[in-house]
Amino acid sequence: MHFTQQDITDLDNRYRAHFINSLSGFKSANLIGTCDANGNHNLAIVSSVFHLGANPPLIGMIMRPHSVPRHTLENIQATKVYTINQVNADFYQQAHQTSARYDKNQSEFEQVGLHPELGQQILAPYVAESALKMGLKLISTQTLAVNGTELVIGEIIEIMVDDEAITKDGYVDIELLDCVTVSGLDSYHVTSRLQRLPYAKPK
Amino acid sequence: MHFTQQDITDLDNRYRAHFINSLSGFKSANLIGTCDANGNHNLAIVSSVFHLGANPPLIGMIMRPHSVPRHTLENIQATKVYTINQVNADFYQQAHQTSARYDKNQSEFEQVGLHPELGQQILAPYVAESALKMGLKLISTQTLAVNGTELVIGEIIEIMVDDEAITKDGYVDIELLDCVTVSGLDSYHVTSRLQRLPYAKPK
Repeated sequence: MHFTQQDITDLDNRYRAHFINSLSGFKSANLIGTCDANGNHNLAIVSSVFHLGANPPLIGMIMRPHSVPRHTLENIQATKVYTINQVNADFYQQAHQTSARYDKNQSEFEQVGLHPELGQQILAPYVAESALKMGLKLISTQTLAVNGTELVIGEIIEIMVDDEAITKDGYVDIELLDCVTVSGLDSYHVTSRLQRLPYAKPK
Repeated sequence: MHFTQQDITDLDNRYRAHFINSLSGFKSANLIGTCDANGNHNLAIVSSVFHLGANPPLIGMIMRPHSVPRHTLENIQATKVYTINQVNADFYQQAHQTSARYDKNQSEFEQVGLHPELGQQILAPYVAESALKMGLKLISTQTLAVNGTELVIGEIIEIMVDDEAITKDGYVDIELLDCVTVSGLDSYHVTSRLQRLPYAKPK
């Protein structure tokens, strides 16, 4: 099936959102933990977290200022810290439920039944149930001119991970941790490893 | 297991690359098809493609200028067009092999045994074997000050997808298409759906 630019423009808005969100492929599933200046906790599921660099250890994510995680963005800009917590198969339904439009004074932790946990470095809350979590300090936010989304870049300053998942060469076996992956707006998947492949060289 | 910022800094470089690359979660697996000004084809696997917006339909990706896909970045900047082709389980090993350091005059299509296919809108080559592919025009490239990587943003102007995978509400079932997901630098996975979840509302 072939779609031209005009075909895409002509799609119903909701249909297009599902359609275009599917095209880039599988996405990470993470809960972003923040607090406001008064220490109130906030938690939001985000599928736009991506690796930006290993040295220094940097993570990027895209936030839509007018969508649900707006409290998250406000908190990050106010406190300069946040946590990223991988979503495991055990609690993906609760993680998804954080995308409901709760009021700013409602903690999504309480609303969905997940538990905040404090680390050693930052005030933002971790998700106790997550098997792989990291604390970040904000490096920069920038509005992307093309569509008004925000690119948030942070540096990892703390990592907590079940040590059974760390392999000899440093690779963390996130499949062993039952981390899930997302496709489109709302489809959750577990994975089955095909193979780790060796560093490729010309034959 | 707990890592501080100092612990991360002290890691061996190769170990840290594997480790940090694993933390953000599952990633998309895509082949980027480009051509240079003379029409020579290039193909490179990239795990940094992400959804940026549905209307207009925008895709972002991160490229490391000094790593293997540098020919890809040069070609995109020269020709302003490229293709993104989802990697299916059938050919993930060939896709991975495109990351070897081939010379600029060698076509990765030929070297790894995949087949270029031309669309109707742009000169950049698609991967015939891919079940989900799109053509993009370049919107912008920008160097991220924090680590010198390039953020490449493109608009989707052509989509080709097996129609059996498009569901009623627009979601494309990329699991049905056997699209793979990547973790870390080199681990490839197929998926098994847990569930599609309804739009979340406060309870």
